[in-house]
Amino acid sequence: MAKPAAPGLQIRRWSAGRWTDTPDAVVTEEPLQLMLEGQPLSVVMRTPGHDLELCLGLMYSEGILRGLDDVSFMRISAEAGESEDRIRVEADLVESNQVDAHFVSGPRRKPERSMLSSSACGVCGTVMIEDLRRDLAPLPDGLVVDPSVLPGLVDILRQGQGVFDRTGGLHAAGLFNAQGGLIHLREDVGRHNAVDKVVGRALLDRSLPAATSVLVVSGRAGYEIVQKSISAGIPVLAAVGAPSSLAVALAREFNQTLVGFLRGDRYNVYSAPERLTR
Amino acid sequence: MAKPAAPGLQIRRWSAGRWTDTPDAVVTEEPLQLMLEGQPLSVVMRTPGHDLELCLGLMYSEGILRGLDDVSFMRISAEAGESEDRIRVEADLVESNQVDAHFVSGPRRKPERSMLSSSACGVCGTVMIEDLRRDLAPLPDGLVVDPSVLPGLVDILRQGQGVFDRTGGLHAAGLFNAQGGLIHLREDVGRHNAVDKVVGRALLDRSLPAATSVLVVSGRAGYEIVQKSISAGIPVLAAVGAPSSLAVALAREFNQTLVGFLRGDRYNVYSAPERLTR
Repeated sequence: MAKPAAPGLQIRRWSAGRWTDTPDAVVTEEPLQLMLEGQPLSVVMRTPGHDLELCLGLMYSEGILRGLDDVSFMRISAEAGESEDRIRVEADLVESNQVDAHFVSGPRRKPERSMLSSSACGVCGTVMIEDLRRDLAPLPDGLVVDPSVLPGLVDILRQGQGVFDRTGGLHAAGLFNAQGGLIHLREDVGRHNAVDKVVGRALLDRSLPAATSVLVVSGRAGYEIVQKSISAGIPVLAAVGAPSSLAVALAREFNQTLVGFLRGDRYNVYSAPERLTR
Repeated sequence: MAKPAAPGLQIRRWSAGRWTDTPDAVVTEEPLQLMLEGQPLSVVMRTPGHDLELCLGLMYSEGILRGLDDVSFMRISAEAGESEDRIRVEADLVESNQVDAHFVSGPRRKPERSMLSSSACGVCGTVMIEDLRRDLAPLPDGLVVDPSVLPGLVDILRQGQGVFDRTGGLHAAGLFNAQGGLIHLREDVGRHNAVDKVVGRALLDRSLPAATSVLVVSGRAGYEIVQKSISAGIPVLAAVGAPSSLAVALAREFNQTLVGFLRGDRYNVYSAPERLTR
């Protein structure tokens, strides 16, 4: 991973009434400009590294891509700015009406105005449940995960997070198989970006929909994380933090198993608990 | 605060190898449609409550408003949807070229296309440092805060968070005076929304720029939180979580005192430590 932590900063530390001057590391957050068909699609604030995967995952989650074969061209380049370098990713799509079986309706989405106002975080100009219902089918039953597997996955996530312990500022997303084996781990200052990077990697591996996998995220499960993981066909989503009401509603609507507060040997199941059986 | 937690859900809880069925509460996340001059400006995913403050704070942070007198009309109404009610806030602005002394340059921003693609989270179609430099002046020196005041503010924030303990899913933002007295506390599923609500409240009180105040946030300090608090003229920002590299760069550029990892009796100061002196 390139530049996950910014080079040493001098900071002042207050501890029990005393100041010390000390070097410190913080997590890198930098803008990436995503261009689609020559038009600006989004500026993504992200932690550098796995940038093509991030862009692929973002476009897949937004329904702009339905598969890897929709991409005809992709290029990454750096643009020097006054106070920061801006990384630019350009993507072109093939003309196609191919529809993945995972999706309900017709051709892939055109990046309309509503797309432009949506973003890496999925919450702006956002696709609501009613819109999603037109695009996505409920996730199929069938996958079974031993409920005692889940608690161990957070430890694997933390162990894999090389940068996490040093800066305390990175979210992680880990894609696991049903037996708890780690497939991909990605980190980012934004938890939605970490999910996009994992989804983009799976897209490159031609393993979407990820119908036998479990996604574990280090933060909370808001609407956007659930939406992205349902788009990727992931039947079990487990979050270390809390879910929101809309996340629960979405997971129930689309038959996704949503787990929250995955900590120690405990967790809550908010939807589709049938998949968690021995 | 209206509906901060969704009504009781039935969930399954896994604990040490055993399942129990139990009622549970999750934090409410619902869409709000913000219309400006009859055009959709943003769909904000937020926790209901203080919605006008949220919209005012969002528009102020984005530079669409320079003061309360820029608003000629504001109305909130509910729109019934198939699977959710969508709250709609409409705002109209007066024609004006008034410029607040806090801002460097000419008239207030027009909500251009780039505005449309920006959002509550401030990270999409985002305003970069180079753009901000055209709009904002560095925060003035002068405010002095006793460094031993900061650790107590997190306790005040937590005590004020009625909902937090029940759902574990809400971020908080608290505006304090320099002596550590709480002025406003707001909660939201999105930490940027909590900040927008606080800023909107201060705007209604005609107390912006909040030049003698300290903002404390329960989560991390990313770019967008720093940008919003600088826009509001807040000289000291303290976060319970980690800052990002861009947050530190922005705070240093605009002479904001940025504190991170405010936990127990410890914290780190990433910029402008001079304001923290006895």
